[in-house]
Amino acid sequence: MSEPISAVDVIRTKRDGGELTDAQIRWFIAAYTRGDVAHEQASALTMAVFFRGMTPRELATWTDAMIASGTRLDLSAVGRPTVDKHSTGGVGDKISLPLCPLVAAFGVAVPQLSGRGLGHTGGTLDKLEAIPGLRTDLSGQGFIDQLRDVGAVICAAGPDLAPADKLLYALRDVTATVESIPLIASSIMSKKIAEGTDGLVLDVKVGAGAFMRDRDRAEELARAMVRLGADHGVRAVAVLTAMDAPLGYAAGNGVEVAESVEVLAGGGPADVRELTVALAAEMLELAGVDADPAAALDDGRAMDVWNAMIRAQGGDPAAPLPSAALSHVVTADTAGVVSAIRAMPVGMAAWRAGAGRSRRDEPVSPGAGVVLRVGVGDAVAAGGALAEIYADDEAHLAAAVHEFAGAVALADHADAPGSRVLGRVTA
Amino acid sequence: MSEPISAVDVIRTKRDGGELTDAQIRWFIAAYTRGDVAHEQASALTMAVFFRGMTPRELATWTDAMIASGTRLDLSAVGRPTVDKHSTGGVGDKISLPLCPLVAAFGVAVPQLSGRGLGHTGGTLDKLEAIPGLRTDLSGQGFIDQLRDVGAVICAAGPDLAPADKLLYALRDVTATVESIPLIASSIMSKKIAEGTDGLVLDVKVGAGAFMRDRDRAEELARAMVRLGADHGVRAVAVLTAMDAPLGYAAGNGVEVAESVEVLAGGGPADVRELTVALAAEMLELAGVDADPAAALDDGRAMDVWNAMIRAQGGDPAAPLPSAALSHVVTADTAGVVSAIRAMPVGMAAWRAGAGRSRRDEPVSPGAGVVLRVGVGDAVAAGGALAEIYADDEAHLAAAVHEFAGAVALADHADAPGSRVLGRVTA
Repeated sequence: MSEPISAVDVIRTKRDGGELTDAQIRWFIAAYTRGDVAHEQASALTMAVFFRGMTPRELATWTDAMIASGTRLDLSAVGRPTVDKHSTGGVGDKISLPLCPLVAAFGVAVPQLSGRGLGHTGGTLDKLEAIPGLRTDLSGQGFIDQLRDVGAVICAAGPDLAPADKLLYALRDVTATVESIPLIASSIMSKKIAEGTDGLVLDVKVGAGAFMRDRDRAEELARAMVRLGADHGVRAVAVLTAMDAPLGYAAGNGVEVAESVEVLAGGGPADVRELTVALAAEMLELAGVDADPAAALDDGRAMDVWNAMIRAQGGDPAAPLPSAALSHVVTADTAGVVSAIRAMPVGMAAWRAGAGRSRRDEPVSPGAGVVLRVGVGDAVAAGGALAEIYADDEAHLAAAVHEFAGAVALADHADAPGSRVLGRVTA
Repeated sequence: MSEPISAVDVIRTKRDGGELTDAQIRWFIAAYTRGDVAHEQASALTMAVFFRGMTPRELATWTDAMIASGTRLDLSAVGRPTVDKHSTGGVGDKISLPLCPLVAAFGVAVPQLSGRGLGHTGGTLDKLEAIPGLRTDLSGQGFIDQLRDVGAVICAAGPDLAPADKLLYALRDVTATVESIPLIASSIMSKKIAEGTDGLVLDVKVGAGAFMRDRDRAEELARAMVRLGADHGVRAVAVLTAMDAPLGYAAGNGVEVAESVEVLAGGGPADVRELTVALAAEMLELAGVDADPAAALDDGRAMDVWNAMIRAQGGDPAAPLPSAALSHVVTADTAGVVSAIRAMPVGMAAWRAGAGRSRRDEPVSPGAGVVLRVGVGDAVAAGGALAEIYADDEAHLAAAVHEFAGAVALADHADAPGSRVLGRVTA
């Protein structure tokens, strides 16, 4: 008979740099999920993991235990290859919105179970819900049916999808253990593996507006996630992409939907189109489809799937998007050329305007946000518009304008912006 | 107007190796005490402190905030100099029992607010409560009166003595952050400073049966505590003492009271008498009394104060101590000379016999424990008695006998045991 496992022993082992056994990890995650391990014990363990890390075997078992805390979906009834995409989060990152219908236009199903935003980067569900009437709380059968019939779904995860992650994610947020590679990797991959997708493209953001400020740590995270996918039979590829400047011109909910629709119509900002096409190409390759995704943006096929997806989820793709009550145009003090646009102040401004939330249960404004009027390399006259900020009341507007200060850098000249795609990590 | 302080910012700052401001520390301790900071946040911070440590300024402020979470007692009405002793805990460490009355016999007041045991080392209150009728829940006025009239008090701390420490102590116990020098130092010193004593002798145990296994860490803890005393106007001296072998022959509650009474009668094990006299000499020096404490053990003055103390707290010093229902004599397999007695298995055996508790609300047995029949250097015949173990039922007895295995090492010869006192740290 083996000794019973105690939470204190597990914490102490990790704290002192030891390796946890598979039995210890599985016990801890299961006991925490059912409430037999206290929040303060899970918090101590995650902080110890922050300092000590995890071995690949520990991380694989930890992730597996998180998946096993709920049910892994079976998407075989969909009858199409399935590929999903996950982004680690960036300012103006609306890529899922044009990407999911674009990939679905090639007969591939994209089963995107997504989350809400907390902090400065916004959440895909919050953005999509700016569309009047749209629902993101699909039933299990509704999810499968829409995947089979439309191919693209963006909806909320049910309570049985990696419930251990829901607990740990909320805990890490209030205990400053978010920025830990094994904890980030297991959180993302447990949900994506449990979702049942065959393939997964990971957009790992690097730069001043991202969680990962430096390339080495971003690559380490990417490698860890690709390996976890392989461990669980999910073909995964990671793409490292730049997040120093915001993606596109819009940061907010409704304003990002509008920009996404421009891309689906074959237009939109060059960087949003470039990244959408690059990620779609990766997803199609994983699904075994040999095709040029850009063509489906230009000929309306992606837009058709978008309209079908919105309608299937109860929304009206033709309805006007909600607008905010107030707006303010931020102008340049001096003339110059835009040499940089900093993602962090733009994201903070959109958040403070009301597009994001500070607490989990806070509502977000569909109309609030920031729309840049300039891009890097543009010349601006003194007094010329740099951005327009939208909010529902004066207090939010003033807070957002305050955060925006310093977002746009002016100089004598500017280098042309480089590609968003910095590198690629495969199994 | 300064920014509001957030628990997550405080945790993140410490996690990343930054120094906390006085305002952050005072806010965190006060908010945790009143319930506005969650247990999981305090747990994450203590684990970050485990890894990052504290600067002397942080530790001084942290300790001060813990004192300020309750009331610092004023002992000026006692009319005697006050000196207390604290031990970091060892197996068979009953020293407080003879020491408090011994020091009080010289006109000094010893205001010992003590705790209960958790784990293998036992608590002074648990030991004293083996005496029939004795109460340790004195009122504030009863405490002052007994200090003035008898000079010696050993009782429980009230709820208003460093309540932040009560919370943190319970938290650290279940989250594996006990073994952190700043957290240990602040826990001990906040209580002892809040108790109102003028002087304090710290018995810092070093060795295989103690929290501190190595001398360097024990000295670091001793220096931190002595400095905290000086910061708060408490004259403190630390004595480093050996805790490889148990102190004396008895480990348990009633059996340790019996051994203490032997010392008060001028006899008892040599090491218990040696350490009692050494610590008494330090305490008398801090109180400005120039006297030989050993004389008061030999001439009955210390025993008179003991009897008065027990009576003042409702106990009968002449009543027989409770005995356990069962006992078992552990014998030697082979002949030999006792070369070592290991504190840890002896402490574990006493604990499992029923003398200690595993959970905070568990009762302890007054009769259970271990009494060694041999000391280091004694010759033993094959089949000769090594120890007698006492318990209230067969299950406890069997568990204790199991834990005792390996406690006594036999060899061809043995070195004479050295002095318990290893070193001294002063301000």
